[in-house]
Amino acid sequence: MLTRIDHIGIACFDLDRTVDFYRATYGFEVFHTEVNEEQGVREAMLRINGTDDGGSSYIQLLEPVREDSAVAKWLAKNGEGVHHIAFGTADVDADAEAARERGVRVLYDEPRTGSMGSRITFLHPKDCHGVLTELVTAAGSSASSVPPASTDH
Amino acid sequence: MLTRIDHIGIACFDLDRTVDFYRATYGFEVFHTEVNEEQGVREAMLRINGTDDGGSSYIQLLEPVREDSAVAKWLAKNGEGVHHIAFGTADVDADAEAARERGVRVLYDEPRTGSMGSRITFLHPKDCHGVLTELVTAAGSSASSVPPASTDH
Repeated sequence: MLTRIDHIGIACFDLDRTVDFYRATYGFEVFHTEVNEEQGVREAMLRINGTDDGGSSYIQLLEPVREDSAVAKWLAKNGEGVHHIAFGTADVDADAEAARERGVRVLYDEPRTGSMGSRITFLHPKDCHGVLTELVTAAGSSASSVPPASTDH
Repeated sequence: MLTRIDHIGIACFDLDRTVDFYRATYGFEVFHTEVNEEQGVREAMLRINGTDDGGSSYIQLLEPVREDSAVAKWLAKNGEGVHHIAFGTADVDADAEAARERGVRVLYDEPRTGSMGSRITFLHPKDCHGVLTELVTAAGSSASSVPPASTDH
């Protein structure tokens, strides 16, 4: 079950300049940065607010680190702007499977690693009214990572 | 101060079909619908989660109701997809003025009426790294609507 807007992914040509814009204009600070080699991006997560499922909502700024990355191709075609949106779930596997059963193309056979150790997959924008849609389970919050209730005492 | 992702505005050709997609695929229900004659749109707000500033985050689905509306022109050029993002604030006037002072073009001289009686303005996408950015103060939550502390007792 999708329980929050996890982030809005925004593609940019120059991550440092874009981070500066968000800080100077809105006061948003960088919460986390990383390079995701698989996705071919350097990214900054700006935490905007907490959510009532115990998670957070972020702005994710993405700069491509190689020309053959999906984000680089998208930028070349569209220019800077919103690249994707992401909904948070405790069980990305179950929600990806549910989408697949409803006829929505899921881009990965199995979820891959996203920001901050999360597990992510994407739904095809042509099956989602033009919106590239990510499903994300934050690290440590997946259904399978919840420890069983102790019966030792 | 911007304290939440208030909504993601998504332009679509057929509001009812798009609402059906979000309900069937994700289980998101319609929280509110209205026609905004000034903006030239019919819209549905899908509430996704609560936020730790006391507000909510929504998906806003937008269908144009006249061909000369900004959303109709945007759809003709871009097809369906993310039209804008919106940050929530208790004081849209102050945040719009702050953006203006930093050289960001604000599209309205004064905030106008948005979804559910909110007060909104937009920042020019060319000044925001390609992202049409809305600032929104929810009805009843503006700084000026907070009653003064009583000194009667």
